[in-house]
Parts: sequence; C-alpha cells; structure tokens
Amino acid sequence: MEVNKQKYAADLSSFKEAQARINPFIHKTPVMTSESLNAISGRKLFFKCECFQKGGAFKFRGACNAIFSLDDHQAAKGVVTHSSGNHAAALALAAKLRGIPAHIVIPKNAPQCKVQNVMRYGGNIIWSEAAVQSREEVAKKVLQETGAVLIHPYNDRRIISGQGTISLELLEQAPEIDTIVVPISGGGLISGVALAAKSINPAIRILAAEPKGANDAAQSKAAGKIITLPETNTIADGLRAFLGELTWPVVRDLVDDIITVDDSEIIEAMRLCYEILKVAVEPSGAIGLAAVLSDSFRNNPAWKDCNQIGIVVSGGNVDLEVLWNSLRK
Amino acid sequence: MEVNKQKYAADLSSFKEAQARINPFIHKTPVMTSESLNAISGRKLFFKCECFQKGGAFKFRGACNAIFSLDDHQAAKGVVTHSSGNHAAALALAAKLRGIPAHIVIPKNAPQCKVQNVMRYGGNIIWSEAAVQSREEVAKKVLQETGAVLIHPYNDRRIISGQGTISLELLEQAPEIDTIVVPISGGGLISGVALAAKSINPAIRILAAEPKGANDAAQSKAAGKIITLPETNTIADGLRAFLGELTWPVVRDLVDDIITVDDSEIIEAMRLCYEILKVAVEPSGAIGLAAVLSDSFRNNPAWKDCNQIGIVVSGGNVDLEVLWNSLRK
Repeated sequence: MEVNKQKYAADLSSFKEAQARINPFIHKTPVMTSESLNAISGRKLFFKCECFQKGGAFKFRGACNAIFSLDDHQAAKGVVTHSSGNHAAALALAAKLRGIPAHIVIPKNAPQCKVQNVMRYGGNIIWSEAAVQSREEVAKKVLQETGAVLIHPYNDRRIISGQGTISLELLEQAPEIDTIVVPISGGGLISGVALAAKSINPAIRILAAEPKGANDAAQSKAAGKIITLPETNTIADGLRAFLGELTWPVVRDLVDDIITVDDSEIIEAMRLCYEILKVAVEPSGAIGLAAVLSDSFRNNPAWKDCNQIGIVVSGGNVDLEVLWNSLRK
Repeated sequence: MEVNKQKYAADLSSFKEAQARINPFIHKTPVMTSESLNAISGRKLFFKCECFQKGGAFKFRGACNAIFSLDDHQAAKGVVTHSSGNHAAALALAAKLRGIPAHIVIPKNAPQCKVQNVMRYGGNIIWSEAAVQSREEVAKKVLQETGAVLIHPYNDRRIISGQGTISLELLEQAPEIDTIVVPISGGGLISGVALAAKSINPAIRILAAEPKGANDAAQSKAAGKIITLPETNTIADGLRAFLGELTWPVVRDLVDDIITVDDSEIIEAMRLCYEILKVAVEPSGAIGLAAVLSDSFRNNPAWKDCNQIGIVVSGGNVDLEVLWNSLRK
C-alpha cells in the first residue's frame, strides 16, 4: 500500500526530523529474538523492546519530540496532559529534561507503578475520575489556569511522528521483517509505526492487536468510522482509549487487520515474555505476542506468509502484584 | 595488574578462539543503562544482560565452547555434567545444536524453571541428592556407563574461555568501563571475565559479589587457600559452589575484592531490576547490583573512583513463585 503523504498527520520527513530531535535523549531499544518463541509461534519473531525505553514505554519518543518541538516562549509555561500512565510519565520526564513544568491529569484507577513514575520524574499530579470525559474536563481547567500547552497522548502530529521512529530503528535492526504487529488504543503508536514503515517499504503488513474488552478499533474498521464504547473491560490498562481524528485515517487505510485477543491470551503472553524472554512487560506490552499466538491469526490464510514478524513490546510498567495475581489464576 | 598468561587456565588467545567458535550460536547480549539506577547508586552502571543469553544465563557461552571444541570421536559419546541448573540447561542446548546426547545430573532441590529448561532442550536427566558429593558420585557413575565426556561447570579451561567472551563484548560495547562486578560461585565466570578484561586493560578492577550465606570465596581470599563450607544458606541458588583448582589462582591474583551481601540486599536488587530495568533476573543475577548498592562497597574508599561500572547480570531463570514470595516478605 503506497503512502500518500498529503493525507496523514505525519510523513517520512517528520519521522526523520523527530529521530534527529529525540536521538540524544532516547534509548535505542534492542530487538530480541528467541528460538523457543519462534518454535511456539511457527514464525520468526523480532521483539522491539520498548519496555526498555526511558520511562518504561515507547511513549517517551512522542513526548520527547513534542516537548523539544516547542519554541522557548511556548515551553516556558509548561505542558499539560491526561493519561492512564505511560504518556504521563514520559511527558514528565521529557519536561524535566527540558527544565519546564509538566501538569499531569491522572485518573484515580491508574496503575500504582505508572503514578510512581510520574512522581519520580517530578510531574505535577492532578487527579481526575476514571472516565475519559472527566480527564478531559480536568485537563481543560488546568490549561486555563496555567496557560500551558496541551500535549494530547496520541491525537497530535508531534506524538505520532515520535512514535514512528520505532519503525525507522526496527527496519534498520531487522530489515527482513515483512509484518509488524502493534498494540492499538488511541492509535498514536500504530499510526506512527504504520506510516513510517510503509513509507520505507510499502509491502510491509501492519497488524493491530487489540483486547476484546476494548475492541473499538476493530469495530471502527468494520463500520468505516470511529466507534467509541460506553465502557471497556480489559487487564490491558494502556489500551482503553479510542481513536482520534488524526489516527483514524491511518488505521482505516494503512492497518491491514485488527486481531482481537482476550485477557487470558494476554496473560499467557506476559508469562512467556517473563519466563522465556526474561522481560517484564505490562499487559498492553504483551498483546502483540498474544495476537501472533492467537487462533484467529494462525488460522487466517491471509497471514500465512507473514514469516518475519516484528512485534512492538510497547511497555513494561506492571505492578508486581498485578502480574502475580493475574498469572496464578 | 598485568596478566601472566603462563599461570592461568585461559588467556587472550583462548578467549578469542572461543569467541570465534561460539559467535554463530550465542546472543550478543545488550548492555543496558538506567539513569534512575545511576542516581540510586551514585555511579554510572552498565548492565551486561546475560539473562537474555540463550538458555537464560551466561553458561551457554562456556558450554557451547566446550561442546564445539570436542573432536567428532569424543563428541559421538555425548557429554555429562552435574549442575544446579543453568550450566545443565546450557550444556543440553549446546549438545542439541551439535546433535549429541547430554546426560545431566541434577540435584533434587534445583529450581523448577531450570529443570524445565533442561527438559526443553532434550537433556537426559539423572537425579541426585542436593549435596555436591552426591552429584559428583552420580556423575561418575554415568561417565563410566556411557563413556561420555565430563564437562565440569567451571573448573575447565574451555568453560572459562567461553565465559571470558563476556569481557570481549562488554569492553567493546562500553569501553569506558573502569570496574566490572561479577557474581562468584565456582569461579568459572569471574575467572574468564577477569582474565579477559585484564588482558585487554590491566587497570580495570574486578570485584566479586558473593552471598554472605555462601561466602567461601571471601574466606578463601582471606585465608590464601581454597576454603569450602559444610553448608550454604542463600536464596542465590546459582552461587553455592566452591572454587576449583583452575579458578582459585585467578580469584587469588586478579580479583581485587569480594563484596558479600545478604539475601535481603539481593532481593531488593531483584526488585529494582524488575521495576526499573524491566528485566527478570534470578537472585544470582541480581547480586552484582546488590553489591554496588551495599554499604560495604559505597563506604570503602578503595572503590571511591569506580565510576563506570560494568555489572554482569548473569542469569534470569527464576520461578515466578519464588520471585513473588521473596519480594512480598
């Protein structure tokens, strides 16, 4: 699929600019392979370990790109966001590096370890209720009071451009990849990864992995328009957001399919990451492996020749107690 | 300290030969850094993540070197070893790659996940009692019955040469390192790492990390001869062996100091590896970080200028239940 660069929120030049901007600050994360997991999946898997990114998730790429894109005048008043956790921590860390304030609206049900990361990086925490609407209202109020710049977690060209740098690295580290499996939530990660990867290699397939209990993206693809859900129900706390107007066109046009998995598949993938890869991943981070191991992927003839599969392991921030309680069930 | 290559079981040429021999089979493991852990320790830390090595531990380097050193006649009858786990799994895997049998004597108290690794790689398991003496007797019997070659877990030039390839890689990945901290048990790992590192840079410091409940190496250094203990008591199941005649001279001459830590320090280091590095490490694998964070290291003026510290994270094979039960205490 050719990428028409006029149509979307980011393009190869914005990815390359982002890469140059953030490279002094980010970790170039390793690509891990495991013959045991290749044998289990029947494919060759390349794990792009963004759980090792600063702040414990890919979110630092976009946050860093956004923060260092601001001119000095904009930056002086600081930034605001609302996030279930990883974007919040990433923005706090990037703001700290630039020496500006970060006001972070966090829902009360966010995982403890993600809140701790925000604190560790010196973010100014403002609590909201769990619902997206409450988060947005509180953020709006903070914006008015501080005059800071809103950095949306995903519906933002700077964020999408930052996340897309994953593809630039991954396709350099493992150029043989023919497919990339990416977790989908608000779509910032997959938009960046899909646009950047297909700009480099239009033949590459991009598959989204989504929890069945928050399958708004799968429903949106089926309906041909953005669908939101009255509620979501999944262990993958990072995958409960809905597509935005900048990410939807990319998902609609450039994401080849959406594979939905249930929480028990996510938990089993977490266990395999822990036991075989020796990598601590959060549920949202393990979902790509869960998708590749799912029957709906394995049995779909369309993906029979997906043999060299990049999997974006998106984050590693999981409370040990949550990990343990989910694995022992 | 200059390395006199006549005196020891391995030398730079044996390390380079080993590296050429094993490179097609091993993972070149990443070196991870964390600004959070730098801040906590007050030094710059470079984690050489052998937990990501095939088989989940550095042991695959030595095992692979030993197995592929055998001539076809020797190899045909297979190999034998006794091990608490990681060497066993590594040898089974290397033997599988060469297509020869591996007879593995395993003590009944070995961690479940390590036994499973041996099974996964097709090793032929023979059980022994927990004591070293029982392991050795059973191994001797198997040797007589099979005519296979004994590959000792550490007191073997081929093993020491394989483990030393860690230093060749590490000093290429992070040439600024002035100190390497290495877990010590039978001494195969630290002998290889010390000989190889000091062959390249005689000024580099090599510090051993040892559990207080199995401090035979510290006692040996103090006594000027190999000391063994009637029993050991530590969560670090990989660090209960005693020095051998090939490893002792290296430990005596080239290991600058031995830092002992108690189990609670090891557990805290495991937690930091899990929560901050996002890496699953076993207790023996976390002990290097525990040593760097210990008061006895921090307060020792001799190590005040150890500023760029390589830490060998030796293995990642930990039963989740063991991890959980130790962390929640």
